[in-house]
Amino acid sequence: MSENQAAASAAKSPDGVLAEQPHGSGMTADINDQPEVFARLADGQGAAIAAVAAEIAEKRPKYVLFTARGTSDHAALYGAYLTEIRLGIPAAMASPSAITVYGARPDLSDALVIGVSQSGGSPDIAEVLRVAAESGARTLAVTNNPESPLAAQAHRHIDVAAGHERAVAATKTYTAELLALFMLIEGIGTGTGRLADAEAAAVASLPELARTVLEDDTAEQLAPRYRFAERLVTTGRGYAYPTARETALKLMETSYLSALSFSGADLLHGPLAMADPDVPVLAIVGDGPGGEAMREVIGRLGERRADVVSIGPKDVPGAPIRIPSPQVDERLAPMLDILPLQRLALSLALIRGENPDAPRGLRKVTQTL
Amino acid sequence: MSENQAAASAAKSPDGVLAEQPHGSGMTADINDQPEVFARLADGQGAAIAAVAAEIAEKRPKYVLFTARGTSDHAALYGAYLTEIRLGIPAAMASPSAITVYGARPDLSDALVIGVSQSGGSPDIAEVLRVAAESGARTLAVTNNPESPLAAQAHRHIDVAAGHERAVAATKTYTAELLALFMLIEGIGTGTGRLADAEAAAVASLPELARTVLEDDTAEQLAPRYRFAERLVTTGRGYAYPTARETALKLMETSYLSALSFSGADLLHGPLAMADPDVPVLAIVGDGPGGEAMREVIGRLGERRADVVSIGPKDVPGAPIRIPSPQVDERLAPMLDILPLQRLALSLALIRGENPDAPRGLRKVTQTL
Repeated sequence: MSENQAAASAAKSPDGVLAEQPHGSGMTADINDQPEVFARLADGQGAAIAAVAAEIAEKRPKYVLFTARGTSDHAALYGAYLTEIRLGIPAAMASPSAITVYGARPDLSDALVIGVSQSGGSPDIAEVLRVAAESGARTLAVTNNPESPLAAQAHRHIDVAAGHERAVAATKTYTAELLALFMLIEGIGTGTGRLADAEAAAVASLPELARTVLEDDTAEQLAPRYRFAERLVTTGRGYAYPTARETALKLMETSYLSALSFSGADLLHGPLAMADPDVPVLAIVGDGPGGEAMREVIGRLGERRADVVSIGPKDVPGAPIRIPSPQVDERLAPMLDILPLQRLALSLALIRGENPDAPRGLRKVTQTL
Repeated sequence: MSENQAAASAAKSPDGVLAEQPHGSGMTADINDQPEVFARLADGQGAAIAAVAAEIAEKRPKYVLFTARGTSDHAALYGAYLTEIRLGIPAAMASPSAITVYGARPDLSDALVIGVSQSGGSPDIAEVLRVAAESGARTLAVTNNPESPLAAQAHRHIDVAAGHERAVAATKTYTAELLALFMLIEGIGTGTGRLADAEAAAVASLPELARTVLEDDTAEQLAPRYRFAERLVTTGRGYAYPTARETALKLMETSYLSALSFSGADLLHGPLAMADPDVPVLAIVGDGPGGEAMREVIGRLGERRADVVSIGPKDVPGAPIRIPSPQVDERLAPMLDILPLQRLALSLALIRGENPDAPRGLRKVTQTL
């Protein structure tokens, strides 16, 4: 953030009305809260999350279904990867509409069904958990609001404790959901609910890592480059795919770009045709198997002379510009790589004269059935 | 299709080299094959599909996971909705990369895992089925190639028998996959593998309905309207959501548009901000619960003065232009609604001077790991 933006975000009007503040001050403050949110979640919610994890570890589900919408859907997708890779429990995303629109009543008695929602106020997610519980499933809500209908509906609730989010576009609630899911799933993995030493150390290192990432302004400096872009592609694989999807959503919400996200593999099955020098690509390339699998994709994008910017700890052939992020395990990268990309969305919205705190047409709590 | 295009598609060069034919003749012929493909699949593969369905009905899986890429991913998504709604068996999409990139070995012993692939040549889908079988899952391949590695890998195989597909962009293999999945899942539902009378009649009616749809040229006439569009949004809910996704992919593959697809519900969770009078929207609005749920979405798009064209049997307030499709059960609509949308993609590519038979940068068999 520029000094001006940071100052603006601190200056709240006496009656707290956000609309009177400089554009972007809410989102700026939300983004800058994230190191503190990580620290607070790890310290304040660690025991509660461990208790839920221990209970799940004791009665291990046959499979896990996640259900969510919007930004929380991307956190849930991260949770599904983590569950399958780290616990060996099959995990997937459930479509609410089979239940909420068509009245499907699947037998979910072997499942753990996890609803993720920032507000906890989305009626369709609560309805999926209600139907799931009726058929015998265990249900868990992960929200930023312990008083929400979703928290009340579920057998267990995890509070991501991100604090009040000022902007409509979710930032700190997203990364808090990611960390809560990491702590939960890794806690299930040990069998005791508590994190193993390596994972505990990783969680403890996050606030400082996040602070370091936020000190770098490469992403902000890149924003003018996309001033007149109408479309953009984001891509990543594995743990980085949720980051690609969340980046695309932030750019759509705040800067009204047509931002398309693809897993690196799906990109090669069709959408690659669309890539040319006029369509910018943001590629998340971490240090691990997902990042490795992206190298062929970036090579193919290079053949099409696509304009590729990478996000990650190492330079990638074919991507002349890189937004740096720390060299960490791919499981932690989603909580850090998204930070500069949130800032890119914010900065781009501002230079386009938009107000990222209150995107046109959107509401903070989206009620869909 | 115009008379010229139809004539061109019939005139094969002596050595069968597609590149020497008029642009789009392959895709035109593929699209026009679809009524015949429906008839051939229903007659020629009915008994084989019923045998597989009877076997699955006898040993009912606890849940079903679908795995696929590209166009086949959209057919698989349709299969997941159908499984959950019609059979009450939980169904979801599995991400190959947890298994193929990160080496996850989930315990899938209670699952039926269905891989859908036009070519049957995608190594990641075959690998998912191999790992699934190793952990005790039953596996089924749905492909257009009984000699493919995927067909060989799976315990059972369903041949969608669509014949040789001339163009790189899949059309008739997509609708054949949809119909094969319909016959399979409805066959499981009766318990005998055979279709109930209503579903058998529906399948029998498809070729004639498809012929009628292909006689209407509304979609083709709309193409010039999008001549200079760089981006586009497609949306639908429930059974129509796979149609929205497949339409977006066809437009990306053939006309290099940035086409974004959203379930109607997800659209309200963020991407709605992007919609304005300059971003065309194609909305699939069937006659049933999914279509009903779209009406609020189209109202919200109307508030943003979005340019909405609907596809369906009835006019929708907020969508001044409609591409007509027959009034059928929402389960059948995906096999018919996509036909004019394939033609829109074809016509748009042609007026842009592109060759939809051989999109830049794409290969017919995409090998991703």
